[in-house]
Amino acid sequence: MTIVIIGLGLIGGSFARDLRDSPAITELIGVETNPEHLRQALELGLVDRTLPLEQAIQAADVVVLAVPVNTIDRLLPQILDQATSTQTVIDLGSTKQQMIENVKAHPNRGRYVAAHPMAGTENSGPAASFKGLFKNKTVLLCDLDHSAPDACKTALELFHIAGLKFEFMDAVQHDRHAAYVSHLSHIVAYALSLAVQNEEKAGYAVPRLAGGGFASTVRLAMSSSDSWVPIITQNRENILTAVYALSEKLEEFKRALETNDESKLRELIDHANKIRELL
Amino acid sequence: MTIVIIGLGLIGGSFARDLRDSPAITELIGVETNPEHLRQALELGLVDRTLPLEQAIQAADVVVLAVPVNTIDRLLPQILDQATSTQTVIDLGSTKQQMIENVKAHPNRGRYVAAHPMAGTENSGPAASFKGLFKNKTVLLCDLDHSAPDACKTALELFHIAGLKFEFMDAVQHDRHAAYVSHLSHIVAYALSLAVQNEEKAGYAVPRLAGGGFASTVRLAMSSSDSWVPIITQNRENILTAVYALSEKLEEFKRALETNDESKLRELIDHANKIRELL
Repeated sequence: MTIVIIGLGLIGGSFARDLRDSPAITELIGVETNPEHLRQALELGLVDRTLPLEQAIQAADVVVLAVPVNTIDRLLPQILDQATSTQTVIDLGSTKQQMIENVKAHPNRGRYVAAHPMAGTENSGPAASFKGLFKNKTVLLCDLDHSAPDACKTALELFHIAGLKFEFMDAVQHDRHAAYVSHLSHIVAYALSLAVQNEEKAGYAVPRLAGGGFASTVRLAMSSSDSWVPIITQNRENILTAVYALSEKLEEFKRALETNDESKLRELIDHANKIRELL
Repeated sequence: MTIVIIGLGLIGGSFARDLRDSPAITELIGVETNPEHLRQALELGLVDRTLPLEQAIQAADVVVLAVPVNTIDRLLPQILDQATSTQTVIDLGSTKQQMIENVKAHPNRGRYVAAHPMAGTENSGPAASFKGLFKNKTVLLCDLDHSAPDACKTALELFHIAGLKFEFMDAVQHDRHAAYVSHLSHIVAYALSLAVQNEEKAGYAVPRLAGGGFASTVRLAMSSSDSWVPIITQNRENILTAVYALSEKLEEFKRALETNDESKLRELIDHANKIRELL
């Protein structure tokens, strides 16, 4: 099986590393338009070779899209235009509704499998990739009933090699829930980072006072705008709803603080603690 | 040296485990008023024996306060009332200004060393304690010029055994900065947890969609109200300032989302990314 991975950053690079030694894969071809990332990917030996997009797709049994979601939006219809009845096209983007909607009526829709692996770090680029990023994580497969059975089988086979567990979800539901559980965490971390940096002596205080708690809460604030502006923009309405919900909860804390209402603070915190049962 | 640790939860229990095997320590005595915690602490062998507060203090060379900050507030003046000129009293609370202010004019003020180790987890109780919690972490020592030199030396010796690095800070500064860097992270995590739980299908979405990112951002939301209501209440004004700052940044995100302003989103995220340089 010849696999083409478009985008050799954290996600694509890590997926390449996971597939590298599998006997099921005969060749790994990379497509990377960022010259510095291309150089790094080759130096790290992430793929056997790299090719321009058109040629790579012609050589592929499977095309994996691991680029920002706005680029997936742009490339997916073009790739499906050329797709043969034996090729499989998989995307690994963090939003699903819009890209699926875009190709809903495409004659080759069945060749496409929409996936969102729930794995990542705050780092980006080929140098941030590592083998095992996906191990024991979950990949959400959306609207699989619109993908051809053989395309599904191929996608599941590759995800299995990477150590991913499967969940199935409707794309509309996916985007709504991902806004709360994944995307909102990023907004929260960005806002925390900005509030702390805004503090007059952040450069003095952060290195001294940042324990594991702050580091953990703010970690996602290091996630790149190249990946996250497109995600936030695509899932804008759901994320806005989630941000409103967060603001409301923050207001409850503010009011409890302003009125020095200890029993309200205790109630809020005890309720917040229950997230343990869901994780 | 006989060490008395008041409070054998995550912090006191972990500190006990770190001191356990040191040849400098002849006896470790615990004080624990929660019967279930007392039972667990004895079962785990965290201390050589436990005693009621009064008797324990009489036997101590060093008294370590590892209880919620409102309890430290209440106990510290009592303990200093009885303190001899060779005893050292150390607190490990997350706020510093009020408890230092409370004993400012105490005749035995010099026996007291105010400390805040920047270490912890979202778990609490003796069973959550572990050896090495403090290793390579920082302990902030506040207003050391009001502590007797021999008391400082003793405190530093114990912190050194636990593997802590030292930083020195004025208590007013400490509380102001801790509000942003440590306490605000908790409020943010609590609010995120509440917003997500508030979502209709949180019980469906969280187990499926929670990757490492959500888990990391929300982790502190599992921190107990017993520890955190007192911290938040004591540092209320500084925390309110920090919460206002956070709300403002969240408002900037909201406006950028409402107006679909991609360049503003990019600007906010790129600025947020700079926290990497401070960590």
